[in-house]
Amino acid sequence: MDNKAIVEILKAVESGKLSVSEAVARLSMCYESLGFANLDIGRGLRTGISEVLFCEGKTRDQVVSISKSILKRNRRLLATRADTETFKAVKRSIPKAGYNETARVITVNPHPRKTKRRIAVLSAGTSDIPVAEEAVATAEFLGNPVDRVFDVGVAGIHRLFGHLDLLKQANVIVVVAGMEGALAGVVGGLVGGPVIGVPTSVGYGASFGGIASLLTMLNSCAPGVTVVNIDNGFGAGVAASLMNAKRT
Amino acid sequence: MDNKAIVEILKAVESGKLSVSEAVARLSMCYESLGFANLDIGRGLRTGISEVLFCEGKTRDQVVSISKSILKRNRRLLATRADTETFKAVKRSIPKAGYNETARVITVNPHPRKTKRRIAVLSAGTSDIPVAEEAVATAEFLGNPVDRVFDVGVAGIHRLFGHLDLLKQANVIVVVAGMEGALAGVVGGLVGGPVIGVPTSVGYGASFGGIASLLTMLNSCAPGVTVVNIDNGFGAGVAASLMNAKRT
Amino acid sequence: MDNKAIVEILKAVESGKLSVSEAVARLSMCYESLGFANLDIGRGLRTGISEVLFCEGKTRDQVVSISKSILKRNRRLLATRADTETFKAVKRSIPKAGYNETARVITVNPHPRKTKRRIAVLSAGTSDIPVAEEAVATAEFLGNPVDRVFDVGVAGIHRLFGHLDLLKQANVIVVVAGMEGALAGVVGGLVGGPVIGVPTSVGYGASFGGIASLLTMLNSCAPGVTVVNIDNGFGAGVAASLMNAKRT
Amino acid sequence: MDNKAIVEILKAVESGKLSVSEAVARLSMCYESLGFANLDIGRGLRTGISEVLFCEGKTRDQVVSISKSILKRNRRLLATRADTETFKAVKRSIPKAGYNETARVITVNPHPRKTKRRIAVLSAGTSDIPVAEEAVATAEFLGNPVDRVFDVGVAGIHRLFGHLDLLKQANVIVVVAGMEGALAGVVGGLVGGPVIGVPTSVGYGASFGGIASLLTMLNSCAPGVTVVNIDNGFGAGVAASLMNAKRT
Amino acid sequence: MDNKAIVEILKAVESGKLSVSEAVARLSMCYESLGFANLDIGRGLRTGISEVLFCEGKTRDQVVSISKSILKRNRRLLATRADTETFKAVKRSIPKAGYNETARVITVNPHPRKTKRRIAVLSAGTSDIPVAEEAVATAEFLGNPVDRVFDVGVAGIHRLFGHLDLLKQANVIVVVAGMEGALAGVVGGLVGGPVIGVPTSVGYGASFGGIASLLTMLNSCAPGVTVVNIDNGFGAGVAASLMNAKRT
Amino acid sequence: MDNKAIVEILKAVESGKLSVSEAVARLSMCYESLGFANLDIGRGLRTGISEVLFCEGKTRDQVVSISKSILKRNRRLLATRADTETFKAVKRSIPKAGYNETARVITVNPHPRKTKRRIAVLSAGTSDIPVAEEAVATAEFLGNPVDRVFDVGVAGIHRLFGHLDLLKQANVIVVVAGMEGALAGVVGGLVGGPVIGVPTSVGYGASFGGIASLLTMLNSCAPGVTVVNIDNGFGAGVAASLMNAKRT
Amino acid sequence: MDNKAIVEILKAVESGKLSVSEAVARLSMCYESLGFANLDIGRGLRTGISEVLFCEGKTRDQVVSISKSILKRNRRLLATRADTETFKAVKRSIPKAGYNETARVITVNPHPRKTKRRIAVLSAGTSDIPVAEEAVATAEFLGNPVDRVFDVGVAGIHRLFGHLDLLKQANVIVVVAGMEGALAGVVGGLVGGPVIGVPTSVGYGASFGGIASLLTMLNSCAPGVTVVNIDNGFGAGVAASLMNAKRT
Amino acid sequence: MDNKAIVEILKAVESGKLSVSEAVARLSMCYESLGFANLDIGRGLRTGISEVLFCEGKTRDQVVSISKSILKRNRRLLATRADTETFKAVKRSIPKAGYNETARVITVNPHPRKTKRRIAVLSAGTSDIPVAEEAVATAEFLGNPVDRVFDVGVAGIHRLFGHLDLLKQANVIVVVAGMEGALAGVVGGLVGGPVIGVPTSVGYGASFGGIASLLTMLNSCAPGVTVVNIDNGFGAGVAASLMNAKRT
Repeated sequence: MDNKAIVEILKAVESGKLSVSEAVARLSMCYESLGFANLDIGRGLRTGISEVLFCEGKTRDQVVSISKSILKRNRRLLATRADTETFKAVKRSIPKAGYNETARVITVNPHPRKTKRRIAVLSAGTSDIPVAEEAVATAEFLGNPVDRVFDVGVAGIHRLFGHLDLLKQANVIVVVAGMEGALAGVVGGLVGGPVIGVPTSVGYGASFGGIASLLTMLNSCAPGVTVVNIDNGFGAGVAASLMNAKRT
Repeated sequence: MDNKAIVEILKAVESGKLSVSEAVARLSMCYESLGFANLDIGRGLRTGISEVLFCEGKTRDQVVSISKSILKRNRRLLATRADTETFKAVKRSIPKAGYNETARVITVNPHPRKTKRRIAVLSAGTSDIPVAEEAVATAEFLGNPVDRVFDVGVAGIHRLFGHLDLLKQANVIVVVAGMEGALAGVVGGLVGGPVIGVPTSVGYGASFGGIASLLTMLNSCAPGVTVVNIDNGFGAGVAASLMNAKRT
Repeated sequence: MDNKAIVEILKAVESGKLSVSEAVARLSMCYESLGFANLDIGRGLRTGISEVLFCEGKTRDQVVSISKSILKRNRRLLATRADTETFKAVKRSIPKAGYNETARVITVNPHPRKTKRRIAVLSAGTSDIPVAEEAVATAEFLGNPVDRVFDVGVAGIHRLFGHLDLLKQANVIVVVAGMEGALAGVVGGLVGGPVIGVPTSVGYGASFGGIASLLTMLNSCAPGVTVVNIDNGFGAGVAASLMNAKRT
Repeated sequence: MDNKAIVEILKAVESGKLSVSEAVARLSMCYESLGFANLDIGRGLRTGISEVLFCEGKTRDQVVSISKSILKRNRRLLATRADTETFKAVKRSIPKAGYNETARVITVNPHPRKTKRRIAVLSAGTSDIPVAEEAVATAEFLGNPVDRVFDVGVAGIHRLFGHLDLLKQANVIVVVAGMEGALAGVVGGLVGGPVIGVPTSVGYGASFGGIASLLTMLNSCAPGVTVVNIDNGFGAGVAASLMNAKRT
Repeated sequence: MDNKAIVEILKAVESGKLSVSEAVARLSMCYESLGFANLDIGRGLRTGISEVLFCEGKTRDQVVSISKSILKRNRRLLATRADTETFKAVKRSIPKAGYNETARVITVNPHPRKTKRRIAVLSAGTSDIPVAEEAVATAEFLGNPVDRVFDVGVAGIHRLFGHLDLLKQANVIVVVAGMEGALAGVVGGLVGGPVIGVPTSVGYGASFGGIASLLTMLNSCAPGVTVVNIDNGFGAGVAASLMNAKRT
Repeated sequence: MDNKAIVEILKAVESGKLSVSEAVARLSMCYESLGFANLDIGRGLRTGISEVLFCEGKTRDQVVSISKSILKRNRRLLATRADTETFKAVKRSIPKAGYNETARVITVNPHPRKTKRRIAVLSAGTSDIPVAEEAVATAEFLGNPVDRVFDVGVAGIHRLFGHLDLLKQANVIVVVAGMEGALAGVVGGLVGGPVIGVPTSVGYGASFGGIASLLTMLNSCAPGVTVVNIDNGFGAGVAASLMNAKRT
Repeated sequence: MDNKAIVEILKAVESGKLSVSEAVARLSMCYESLGFANLDIGRGLRTGISEVLFCEGKTRDQVVSISKSILKRNRRLLATRADTETFKAVKRSIPKAGYNETARVITVNPHPRKTKRRIAVLSAGTSDIPVAEEAVATAEFLGNPVDRVFDVGVAGIHRLFGHLDLLKQANVIVVVAGMEGALAGVVGGLVGGPVIGVPTSVGYGASFGGIASLLTMLNSCAPGVTVVNIDNGFGAGVAASLMNAKRT
Repeated sequence: MDNKAIVEILKAVESGKLSVSEAVARLSMCYESLGFANLDIGRGLRTGISEVLFCEGKTRDQVVSISKSILKRNRRLLATRADTETFKAVKRSIPKAGYNETARVITVNPHPRKTKRRIAVLSAGTSDIPVAEEAVATAEFLGNPVDRVFDVGVAGIHRLFGHLDLLKQANVIVVVAGMEGALAGVVGGLVGGPVIGVPTSVGYGASFGGIASLLTMLNSCAPGVTVVNIDNGFGAGVAASLMNAKRT
């Protein structure tokens, strides 16, 4: 499938041969063959979230080139796992690119604020903040208002209680925690909205790169806690945004 | 903390010494000491979902006794992992108890329908249906309209496409899958709402009791997929209900 | 080494040829060869705790016979993992034997109360109580006053706070928890004495027979938490008793 | 066994003392002792595929020297896991050596095209392409026509359906996928030929270096899917070539 | 999609409105909704192998009922993991059902012999024979001539060499092995066709239910060996049949 | 909660409006919000041990800045996992900082000696000494007299027996061991006080980064042995100090 | 290969056409095809130890039938993992069969004593005795004098020292231990002969069915310790016998 | 215990107050306290093999200093895991030090040849040679004649058969193999002496750093195979030497 096919769909709409809703359905199944890749053009239409660039393992040139190609099609860009040097390279080509250094996230033209419902992102420790910031940056890029509550792990659980009001006002809560990962279950038992646990690889020895925290969260006694992959702040940000959206 | 404390809170409200909102806050932190247990009376107030009875590993007498004690306090009952004999014992004491045999779930006084937004529960195979039904029963008990789409695993992926309209109308989707567990990611790439993956222990050999499916779902390429524990249909039902509720 | 050797040591003390302290040292290294076993007679002298009988995997006849043989030498008996039928068999031979059915522990002539310092044993859920009771029974057998605080898991963390005074007065705290196992770390961050975590095999799916809880406790952010084997209430009871004793 | 033995076999054929078929049988069991190695000279005769050079963990000098020694005996060379610097060193000694940089594969005198039956090599993502290219390069070296279908992972499953005709015309299909690895099972349910799954180490966190993808493929609901080691594009290329050959 | 849809497709062919090839394409995407299941009617058309019945975990009544339903649609039946009692129940309803007791496989109307190319199925030990027989029964049901070579494990490797001629004449070889699983790699180094390894759960201790054998086969030094799930004789039989078929 | 709140508590004490014991309770629940962190000011009051600085993964500037901030509040500082360059940076800002290079521990104003009861720290090998020294430095910082007994692993068990008197005089024993980790159980069988096992990551191959040693210690036949995380000398030092303190 | 082939080899010896040494070489490569099995007739000649019968998973009839068939060929029989009922069935057919009930081993015509060099078999606990007895029974069957030293685990290490003379006189030592498995390394550091470690599945929780003990033994600091599979007393007995034999 | 104690033992022998055999017993329990280490002086007397220096993780200065200290006491030195630079540093201080670069082993004054019985060391691939050479160097240092048979893995099993005579003449066989590790079991089924398996970390993907090979060897069907830690050529060399010695 190539651009010509997309053009044809649009022309059919223009000429009245195709209804708008049918055209959306067809476009949502579009992709663009580039030989080495099949860009999923329809993803934004299907899922509400366009293709995102994962920079790790790509050269700076590749990141710049793909960034420009995404921008041409989508007008917006979210690129994760980007180090400072990568951002500088992108900045040279795309001057309006923004950067959250802690989150290692590059953004261009974030979505405008879509809702007043708030997402809270918690971290258990300060070492978990980079992953938490990735979740924050992702959720904000997608148009959500976000509150940060960092360093409230269970070793000093009273710190969490000092933020209970903020938690209760949140529509969705993301809990980022390494080591023992217990914070997700504690929060899940305190509030009445969806809680997304993000285990991190913070720790050593028997944390086994995040397995300990992952298992803790999967075994949470508080029902309603769901979990994403270790260190996957981005995925948590997307999931939180989907939960925060009014769909029907 | 005992019943007397609760009575005192209520009397203080009656006499105007305590505002209603402050009374709710205090009651949400109530529990009842029974010596061997501390019933979490405030859970319903805090999280919107009262304490649920997990029957596995309990004797029939214990299940009956706890069921009655929960009903006295909450007027409703959800009891999971209950076999047929257990249900019969409960039925003798609580004649209006209902039972979903496949889901192994006992319910009394389910919540009335709270919303028109629908939850879809999918299963990859027919062996996954008991876990899927546990999710269905839980979500329905909590007042949600639920659609079942069973036996649409990726080995015959066209079966899924026959139900795309239903999926797109769902506000939240629960995907229950054992063996390879690939269905969650496929669905996550097709629709624009939150997707909750429930790995099951269905399979043999290198399925390792559900680990294969769990890892597949955690590594889903489609962002927005979150995961609960293996065979945890109940947890998925609660999480889906929380996501389906309008909170703010 | 046989009984004759022991008799000779004692005769040497009697005759003044051997000092009492030297005799203790020698006796603490005694054992009795029974062909299929080498009873460690000196263990009580070396470690303060005589050999304990682990009943699992032994026939009722073996348990009775070893119980009588231990009693002949030590005057006291602690037998763990004993089911009801085993206890009945022991009771027929040793009428004064006592039994804690939940803990599955048989005792004869427990140590008299040795100290006023108290040990607190906490359980996260009601399913963890059998392991917690094993810890209680062991610590009480060894002469310690013990307080139970059951069903205070993190899904309703306010229940724990209702018992803070009791926890602060405890000299040693044992925390028994399955599933997510988060309670040990929360307690470790609240009090200033040693906390012993006992993971249990309670749970399903990704609890992996207690691994989830074990890893959580090993990764506790609160320093001072130490851990024993999964379901090892006995070991926790012994460790707590050793920590509770005034040695120097 | 040394060259002399081989010479004797050939002389015996020449003089009519040994039939050709018996000589093939004996030669297929030949090897050459080099002290530190026993080159398996007969492998090509036995299995149709001569010894291949795995460059990882070898110095450039070793690679050059072994390459020349293989070429002397086999006239062809396939060397895998070779970085650019290694290729340059080989090129200086063997000017006609070719290189697929993405696949990291060096070839000399590839086998001429043996068949019209085609092999299709699919990748789920763009990060899986190096492993996919290793499979392509191997299968092409062995004389097979190969089609590439890259970046058609299940998060945008419609991209796969755009290539169904090509898949149906393939005699053997190799599916290369990291992260969730679900593509192999989807393809296995769509087509009627053998499907070889190659899990890759692409991913992070709970992908555990490819274990997640490996387990997914082993648990594929679609029968007929077989699997090779993580990142083993070479092995998949050989297996596909063997399946593509007409043997009887 | 229901039977009516299928009838319509066929009527369109009858009336000449639909070409045969297009009708095949549409039928291959058919399924039948039964509420609790979506029977994949098109599987046989898509992949050449109709839906197979996995009996484990199903009641005898369910097996009989599904068997009859499959037969009505496909004229043939393959049911795996069926114990003797299950077979007897099937036999009462379907008198012409056959049974391979060792393989635990029920068959009705096996495919007629399709090819002269032979498949060889090897087992390392006698305990691996049930899994090997499942592979044999599956491949024979699908119309392939099969040779058995059992009990030729590497602890007495000369037994394998006594069957070399048979192995060399096979078009595809299935190797079934538990414990150390080494036989697959040895065979892969001796012959020139595709080798499918089937690890079994035979063994104890560090065989870990087949993991040892699975890893051995995945790490085979002989290229061309591919692997299926532990104890998956059925999958190996299907894969071998696909490889043995002339497709193009 | 900010400094103002703390000041208010203290003023209330000054003015007699708040009792001292109530003020301690409130202060023990204090924390200071710094935006990116919530310093747990009350930890020292709650648990007897103030917040400790874990340097790994922090920049030198961060370590210096946090060190100064902790010192301002607590007058004492314990910083673990600090390399030589980090210490030099700290030393420039805090001239009285001390350093144990083997333990990689920085201290300022260690607690004065609190007790005559001694802690013994054992290491199995010389490679385990860095972790053992971390335990020593931590316990000494907290005011305990400590004895070192290094290189007494079970491969030369007589070396341990040469130090039996010292072990018997210790109130608490810490045993640090990698590889097989057997020393903890041997010591636990010889003495009558609490034994804390610290598995280390010393070893290779099947030591799996300390898992072997961790499992050995968790399975210790000698009751009374408790375990901390792999390489967690600091945690063992804290636990030993808590056990060594007279609380009641 | 069948009996006829064997008869021919023997006739060739008789007639002087084949030297005895060449006949041994040929016979050592003999096997007997029984359709479902290839009996490895030459194993005794090749390795000194004839085929042994592993009873687990075989019916009583199969055990009796194979026992008789082995006896016909080898005059001796060793059958392991045989329960009491199995032995009774064998005894009815083979009246002179002997049985070690603890070891679950059946023997007929054990090898006569071959050497004066002694093998010592140690067990750490009494629960390890069945595995230890399997090693004893195997080594004795093969003609070795064996000494038992049971119940000398490291929790009471002085019991081991009471048997040092016996250990020093042993030519080979087998150490059987579950739980922590530390005894193998301690023994390896005390004596100067080969030590074979046999981990057992005795234990619970984090013993993981013998993994803990297996890892301990593999990581033994004392060089010279080698290890067999979990619970493999038979393998240890064979290995000890091979080490005890004078070969050259 | 210090040098003075040793001197006293020797003086007592000189003066006739202590028999030689008693003096050996006492000296075998000697060690030298160096503060940070307890050198196990008696190890050579107890086990026949003096303390060996493991260089990995030690600085060059430490290696040189410990080497000189061992030489002063033992006249011989074996140092393993030493890189070229470390050897050069040792060579400057100890001019007669020898080096096997592949094995990374330094030796001084190897033991003179003690026996005519030969040890064979096999490697499956060329990448396994460094570990195999460590076994060779160790066994030769200890006075054994050793034969190398390298690169005879099961992918070309006929290469092994070309060396059968050499294998049959060996008194002990060490088999070093990574990846699938199948060679140990094949050899164990062919010869009649003890076989020591050494798994190596050679491989990638599902070899999991040597776990695949380790499990293969532990599950060997050929009885008599024992196993050491992954990459532990040194341990295999020591074990082989102990098995090769005539003790009684």
